[in-house]
Amino acid sequence: MKKVKQNDWEDRTAINRPTTNSHGPEEEERRHWDYHYDEVGVAPGTLVIDDDASPTELTLIDYSENSAMRQKLRSPEEAAEHLDTQSISWIDLQGLGNEDVLNRLGDVFHLHPLVLEDVVNVPQRPKIEYYNDQVVIITRMVMMAPTAKDEDPHFTSEQLSFVLGQNYLLTVQEELNQDCLDPVRNRIRDNIGRIRREGADYLAYALLDAVIDAYFPVLEEYGEYIESLEDEVIFDPTRQTVQKIYRIRRELMFLRRSIWPQRNALNQLIRDGSSELISAEARVYLQDCYDHVVQVLDIVETYRELTANLMDVYLSSVSNRMNEVMKTLTVISSIFIPLTFIVGVYGMNFDTTVSPWNMPELNAYWGYPLCWAAMIAIALGLSYYFRQKGWFEDTAADRLKR
Amino acid sequence: MKKVKQNDWEDRTAINRPTTNSHGPEEEERRHWDYHYDEVGVAPGTLVIDDDASPTELTLIDYSENSAMRQKLRSPEEAAEHLDTQSISWIDLQGLGNEDVLNRLGDVFHLHPLVLEDVVNVPQRPKIEYYNDQVVIITRMVMMAPTAKDEDPHFTSEQLSFVLGQNYLLTVQEELNQDCLDPVRNRIRDNIGRIRREGADYLAYALLDAVIDAYFPVLEEYGEYIESLEDEVIFDPTRQTVQKIYRIRRELMFLRRSIWPQRNALNQLIRDGSSELISAEARVYLQDCYDHVVQVLDIVETYRELTANLMDVYLSSVSNRMNEVMKTLTVISSIFIPLTFIVGVYGMNFDTTVSPWNMPELNAYWGYPLCWAAMIAIALGLSYYFRQKGWFEDTAADRLKR
Amino acid sequence: MKKVKQNDWEDRTAINRPTTNSHGPEEEERRHWDYHYDEVGVAPGTLVIDDDASPTELTLIDYSENSAMRQKLRSPEEAAEHLDTQSISWIDLQGLGNEDVLNRLGDVFHLHPLVLEDVVNVPQRPKIEYYNDQVVIITRMVMMAPTAKDEDPHFTSEQLSFVLGQNYLLTVQEELNQDCLDPVRNRIRDNIGRIRREGADYLAYALLDAVIDAYFPVLEEYGEYIESLEDEVIFDPTRQTVQKIYRIRRELMFLRRSIWPQRNALNQLIRDGSSELISAEARVYLQDCYDHVVQVLDIVETYRELTANLMDVYLSSVSNRMNEVMKTLTVISSIFIPLTFIVGVYGMNFDTTVSPWNMPELNAYWGYPLCWAAMIAIALGLSYYFRQKGWFEDTAADRLKR
Amino acid sequence: MKKVKQNDWEDRTAINRPTTNSHGPEEEERRHWDYHYDEVGVAPGTLVIDDDASPTELTLIDYSENSAMRQKLRSPEEAAEHLDTQSISWIDLQGLGNEDVLNRLGDVFHLHPLVLEDVVNVPQRPKIEYYNDQVVIITRMVMMAPTAKDEDPHFTSEQLSFVLGQNYLLTVQEELNQDCLDPVRNRIRDNIGRIRREGADYLAYALLDAVIDAYFPVLEEYGEYIESLEDEVIFDPTRQTVQKIYRIRRELMFLRRSIWPQRNALNQLIRDGSSELISAEARVYLQDCYDHVVQVLDIVETYRELTANLMDVYLSSVSNRMNEVMKTLTVISSIFIPLTFIVGVYGMNFDTTVSPWNMPELNAYWGYPLCWAAMIAIALGLSYYFRQKGWFEDTAADRLKR
Amino acid sequence: MKKVKQNDWEDRTAINRPTTNSHGPEEEERRHWDYHYDEVGVAPGTLVIDDDASPTELTLIDYSENSAMRQKLRSPEEAAEHLDTQSISWIDLQGLGNEDVLNRLGDVFHLHPLVLEDVVNVPQRPKIEYYNDQVVIITRMVMMAPTAKDEDPHFTSEQLSFVLGQNYLLTVQEELNQDCLDPVRNRIRDNIGRIRREGADYLAYALLDAVIDAYFPVLEEYGEYIESLEDEVIFDPTRQTVQKIYRIRRELMFLRRSIWPQRNALNQLIRDGSSELISAEARVYLQDCYDHVVQVLDIVETYRELTANLMDVYLSSVSNRMNEVMKTLTVISSIFIPLTFIVGVYGMNFDTTVSPWNMPELNAYWGYPLCWAAMIAIALGLSYYFRQKGWFEDTAADRLKR
Repeated sequence: MKKVKQNDWEDRTAINRPTTNSHGPEEEERRHWDYHYDEVGVAPGTLVIDDDASPTELTLIDYSENSAMRQKLRSPEEAAEHLDTQSISWIDLQGLGNEDVLNRLGDVFHLHPLVLEDVVNVPQRPKIEYYNDQVVIITRMVMMAPTAKDEDPHFTSEQLSFVLGQNYLLTVQEELNQDCLDPVRNRIRDNIGRIRREGADYLAYALLDAVIDAYFPVLEEYGEYIESLEDEVIFDPTRQTVQKIYRIRRELMFLRRSIWPQRNALNQLIRDGSSELISAEARVYLQDCYDHVVQVLDIVETYRELTANLMDVYLSSVSNRMNEVMKTLTVISSIFIPLTFIVGVYGMNFDTTVSPWNMPELNAYWGYPLCWAAMIAIALGLSYYFRQKGWFEDTAADRLKR
Repeated sequence: MKKVKQNDWEDRTAINRPTTNSHGPEEEERRHWDYHYDEVGVAPGTLVIDDDASPTELTLIDYSENSAMRQKLRSPEEAAEHLDTQSISWIDLQGLGNEDVLNRLGDVFHLHPLVLEDVVNVPQRPKIEYYNDQVVIITRMVMMAPTAKDEDPHFTSEQLSFVLGQNYLLTVQEELNQDCLDPVRNRIRDNIGRIRREGADYLAYALLDAVIDAYFPVLEEYGEYIESLEDEVIFDPTRQTVQKIYRIRRELMFLRRSIWPQRNALNQLIRDGSSELISAEARVYLQDCYDHVVQVLDIVETYRELTANLMDVYLSSVSNRMNEVMKTLTVISSIFIPLTFIVGVYGMNFDTTVSPWNMPELNAYWGYPLCWAAMIAIALGLSYYFRQKGWFEDTAADRLKR
Repeated sequence: MKKVKQNDWEDRTAINRPTTNSHGPEEEERRHWDYHYDEVGVAPGTLVIDDDASPTELTLIDYSENSAMRQKLRSPEEAAEHLDTQSISWIDLQGLGNEDVLNRLGDVFHLHPLVLEDVVNVPQRPKIEYYNDQVVIITRMVMMAPTAKDEDPHFTSEQLSFVLGQNYLLTVQEELNQDCLDPVRNRIRDNIGRIRREGADYLAYALLDAVIDAYFPVLEEYGEYIESLEDEVIFDPTRQTVQKIYRIRRELMFLRRSIWPQRNALNQLIRDGSSELISAEARVYLQDCYDHVVQVLDIVETYRELTANLMDVYLSSVSNRMNEVMKTLTVISSIFIPLTFIVGVYGMNFDTTVSPWNMPELNAYWGYPLCWAAMIAIALGLSYYFRQKGWFEDTAADRLKR
Repeated sequence: MKKVKQNDWEDRTAINRPTTNSHGPEEEERRHWDYHYDEVGVAPGTLVIDDDASPTELTLIDYSENSAMRQKLRSPEEAAEHLDTQSISWIDLQGLGNEDVLNRLGDVFHLHPLVLEDVVNVPQRPKIEYYNDQVVIITRMVMMAPTAKDEDPHFTSEQLSFVLGQNYLLTVQEELNQDCLDPVRNRIRDNIGRIRREGADYLAYALLDAVIDAYFPVLEEYGEYIESLEDEVIFDPTRQTVQKIYRIRRELMFLRRSIWPQRNALNQLIRDGSSELISAEARVYLQDCYDHVVQVLDIVETYRELTANLMDVYLSSVSNRMNEVMKTLTVISSIFIPLTFIVGVYGMNFDTTVSPWNMPELNAYWGYPLCWAAMIAIALGLSYYFRQKGWFEDTAADRLKR
Repeated sequence: MKKVKQNDWEDRTAINRPTTNSHGPEEEERRHWDYHYDEVGVAPGTLVIDDDASPTELTLIDYSENSAMRQKLRSPEEAAEHLDTQSISWIDLQGLGNEDVLNRLGDVFHLHPLVLEDVVNVPQRPKIEYYNDQVVIITRMVMMAPTAKDEDPHFTSEQLSFVLGQNYLLTVQEELNQDCLDPVRNRIRDNIGRIRREGADYLAYALLDAVIDAYFPVLEEYGEYIESLEDEVIFDPTRQTVQKIYRIRRELMFLRRSIWPQRNALNQLIRDGSSELISAEARVYLQDCYDHVVQVLDIVETYRELTANLMDVYLSSVSNRMNEVMKTLTVISSIFIPLTFIVGVYGMNFDTTVSPWNMPELNAYWGYPLCWAAMIAIALGLSYYFRQKGWFEDTAADRLKR
């Protein structure tokens, strides 16, 4: 067992960080949307390697209370010798691009074909499964996608699978890019907390907890976005607002879909699990992790309800705007249409010379001023009537408030 | 036991493929809609043969680890001799048009009258039932119907029933046309994977899994359609859009109705099933199959929620359009109605010679230009007022975005 | 035991058929609506005889594997001697008008006062109850009411109660008019199927199954009505459409209310029932009956969801119509209002002789044609603008599609 | 044990009847709304006496199979001697205004402080609780409030608490005014049914049943009101209609809130109750009572759904009305605006003498008639267009139907 | 054990009361919204001290049946000696600003690191957890925030954690400001009720009950606000109304989110809890406390449904208003537009001298009066038509009712 140098740890980070996610946002979105599925009738256990899949990289972290080493592995077989030792071995595979490596990994860890399939053919629904001497946990990591200015926030996600055995933990990640597990790696390296004193089950808990805790910053970003939407809906609703509400509801739906099965899986792990791979002490910690999942769900549900209510408010805002438009039209039309009729009357060409009944007003001395007086009276009367109905104030009040 | 030639397999495909579904789309739709029901009071076990039912065809595939044969059967009785052998016998009946064959099949396989009824009187609700030495599974296969250009996607479905016994599996399909089970047949023929080494329960699993996996491409097509609807709703909603949303919601409802009971049936098969016909190993595989059903349901529910939200967006789009129309009317009317009043005023025929108060403006030197100046001022003032209210920009912005 | 002649069976039908339901449709509707309730504080077991109740008629069908007889009974006491024989006795009481007969029936069958109350004070919620040596099942038969042309379909319902004992079955129907049990009577008479070889529990199953199967034609009629409503909503929505949707939703609600408790009752009968009155074999058949109830519920729920969606479509149709109306108004107003302003301008009476600035256009050689040219240009410009906005095409397209 | 005279019974009714509920309708409404709550941190068991509370009155009814007496008690201690006798003692306390009496009652009956609190600090949520030798049932009686003409129906409610012990039953009512228990008192007095032959548990059942049965007339009144609302919504919706729908939904919500916990309490009483205070026979009767509660809930839920649907119909009615208004405006405007333009054209003052192009129509021999002809043609053309669109018929049809 | 002077109790209140909540309303709102979360991957048990956190203050109340003392503690270690005595020790920590004190408290009480984390890293979801010799309860206290006039009511909340051990209770509050526990302190000091005679479990109950009871006044305030909103929606809906409804729905959602998990926690405490720390007698009291939580939830749900209904009423009010506006426009336009056309006709300049067909009306003796007569007839006819349609009355009626 060779000791790694401290800076080797840093190297690793340096190598991995630049690798960015090769999927565009649309494709990424589709991947929230649909689970992986086999071609119809394909034999179970068949691995499907995506052309875009990241190259595969294997890293071993082996630690006990007194020592810790980190080592890149060239082949899965190198991991074999570490599995049966008393020290805890964490084998982290990143990138699903190399079918050969994945198959050999399956052999080294004695993975059931269905497990290998679940781990490789991503995305799968989060779940937990017990095998003879292994516990398999499928989870989903989320992080905010980098967004251009004015773009709605959206999150990306990546499957993280755990295979927990006696004294070892295999984790499989979809991508080479940055994950949210570095703090745990640092705790092992720097011997922070009790992680070096505990078994593989505690390591699995620590990683699961990191995965769950990564949901909170994502939720916080959505929370702020919803708050900004609230203001927009109430004070300045535009046609784009409804699209924003729709998109945030869709995002929350996807978020809920990735966290909900994790709740069930964790619950199963805590309650039913009679597996001896997970100690009673680890169960206490998993309970804490479960509480966090429930909190995440709680917030997601709250956000979903808030956005549903926002939609109602938006619709009423649109109705109110239309009301304002109609009032303007009605006030102006209703005042001027009768007046236009009156001036039309005195534009008629009845021959005043034929009969004294034919428009004698036209020749009256005060005809024109009286006509104006009548029209002003009508205009004032209608204005008063509309003001009584409250149509003026509302409009004014609304404008002031914007 | 006669050995079939390899090309016999191909022949079969050649014969069956051309047979198309004889039901029109409307009738097909009705069949999603309503389950089969007996005439009131008819004795249980009575078979109802639809006039349109496909002719009945029987195929036997008999295999063990070392050999596999495929054979068309002229009568159900020919199957009898295979049932008690150690090799696995898969008897596949297609087409429910021949009551006599169906009854004789019931005798050969010792089917309970209610089982025969469920298998023949289609459609039934998917379910699972245990009989003494048989497990009966009713499922529903789906595939996309071929659609004309511009037609909304819709799916067709067909009942597939399983009767699993000791070393044999009877499957009954409604139609002669292409099913989604060929990949499984090929795996048997070409000895791919472990199917030839396993029992009839594994065969049932493989077929069930093929049936479930066939839901995914259907869902993918709906997913793409919903994405295109999203764009349509937001950028170009027409009166047809709401019909499309309505239809897709109806389709998803039917899809949900065929997959939901399969979830329950599979769950029952895995959890409660103390039947010795299904080995522990097969249960592991069925668990995988169950996971797929849950994923299908997950996607269907997501789509249902998305389309419900789309309806909201559509309604707000319609309201916004009306708002735009009203704004246009209001702006044009509100500007020109007062102006029309003014020109009406100077169209009056008050006799200017009678009194100096009677429309002296008409004889003023700058009368006409001043009148225009006043009207232009009013028009500009109102335009400014409406612009302040944001009625111009919105309209312009909306147009640019289309 | 006197043998009845075959034609006696026919007579019976002849006598009963003409008896029509004496309740009008409105009263019938109220009876869907509200359950029977006792006057406050009335002692349990008090029978309430409705004034409109049909006269009471008692019929006995007594059969064993080798013989079957049918006999009208003059009094409940005549049934007593048949109850303890080995042959199966089906006593069918129709019409709840005779309190004395009902009370004596209670004595003959040793009915618990609460059972007699449930059976007589209709309608009750469907349920199942176990007494020492009896199983009591309350169900509800439905059938379509005859409707005038253009009337919405609606169904009538009638309570059918079963008291299942050792070798006998008592059924109590509300009305004398035609029920849906004749096919079962014919199967007994003609010895079709296994009914003559089975016990009273099988008879109860056969009748229950007939009751459930009678829901399907009702549902089919509603299904067709909903399909016709779909076309109406999309292509020709009127103010009546919304009433039709409301009424069909109400009907489906009542239908659901009568079938839902039957599901629970049947489930209880199959699962919990340790009563020895129901054999294991009968339970298999009841399971089939339960499947049918679930199918009925499935269809009812589907219809309810479809009609809820239809309401959404209707509301959007109304909005679209209003949009079309507004567009027409806006296009015509917006084009002609500016033109009317222009012709108003040249209708003004400014004195052209006073100043060269006063409407020199009026005296221009090309004044009138140029004025027309300007107006036509404005009209074309606005038309082009509105066409760009898509207001013309929509309207045209909508009209074409009607 | 002094025998009461028969007319003493009548007296009692005479004394109590005039006492009316001293709470106004608004206060009453608030009491549906909010449960009683303690001041924060107050010690459990503290009694809170409302200033408006009715004076307290105690009545004893003591009966056995052979005798029955009724007696007003001056103090709770007078009841003590009856509690341990074999005869059934029903102590009925009405009015919660006297803290001293209530405390002494608690002592006499050995009530747990929390029980006394629940009984006195009204309203509490209906529930059931087991104590060592007592079963405590909290229920809620409803009755219709007397309403002025044109007022919406609303109900009042009052808490009725039961403390069931060995051979005695204590009931506590909030108010002195008329309750719905007189029929039970009469059944005891007149020895109707089996009540005198049964124990205190049967008495509790009889009273509970009376309380539940009193919900039905209330529901019937709401049912009739909803039916009248249906007609109003469809044929004559006004602005008041929506308030009525809102109020009835609120009433139904309160009704549901008082009946729902009673369902749970009764269910608990029947299923879990291993208390020996309730005999198996009484449980059969309580099951009947439970069925009635379920029926009440069924009806309440149906009404809630009906009123929710009514709201939809109302909204569509409002939209339809607006549509009608808009159609009228559009038809009249669209026909006359172009005509007004035409007459405006010939009102222009172009000088016909300057050029032959300047309005030669004015001097044409058939100018005026041709102008009319053109206008009539336009009007007819537009009318035909609008009729084609179906705008006339609808309006006409709607009017006819009103 | 030193005896405290009575006035020391008062001092304490004096010191603590002025400390006000240092968070602004917006930040407070955010804290309803999101639970506390750890930085991703942080080791479990890490304490996070908010910069704004109140300074930490420790108070001990130690009592037995015969004596009670209250003492400020300078350090957690001072509490240690009281924990093992027979007297009940209540250690109340307020303010989470001092990490060192909190860590030392964890040591003194042997708190599991996860418990310390839950207690310090606020807010957490209310829950209950069992440890070896401790029961940990996380709850949430609410109180109304002081609001400016015209501001919507909103509530603030604060986490209160309980650690119940043998003979001691540790409570941890977020803030130094006034809590709702003083009445309990007074009951201990003044020996009111049975609190001094009971154990630490009864103290925990008494405090829990005070926390729950504090929800009722908050709910009462919301109830009154909803009642005022009802009037506003029906009689005077403005654009602000919808914002108010939205905000109250959001508040109720947060209220529900803090009470709902407390229901589950309490239920768990009563049903599953086999912990010997809680006596059977205390369970009876906790059941009472649970009933109060259920009542709170009941009221919250009622309010949520009421506000959802209010939104419907608001939308219909807006529609009705628009209807009224449209009617006004339509009535005025429809009457005057035809009249304006008529006067336009007689403003045409057809040369009456050219032909007898050219506007002979202009020269008719009764031309002008007949023209007026025709116009008045038309106006009356249209008015009558609109009155028939009920457009006048509605408008008038609506105005009267405002």
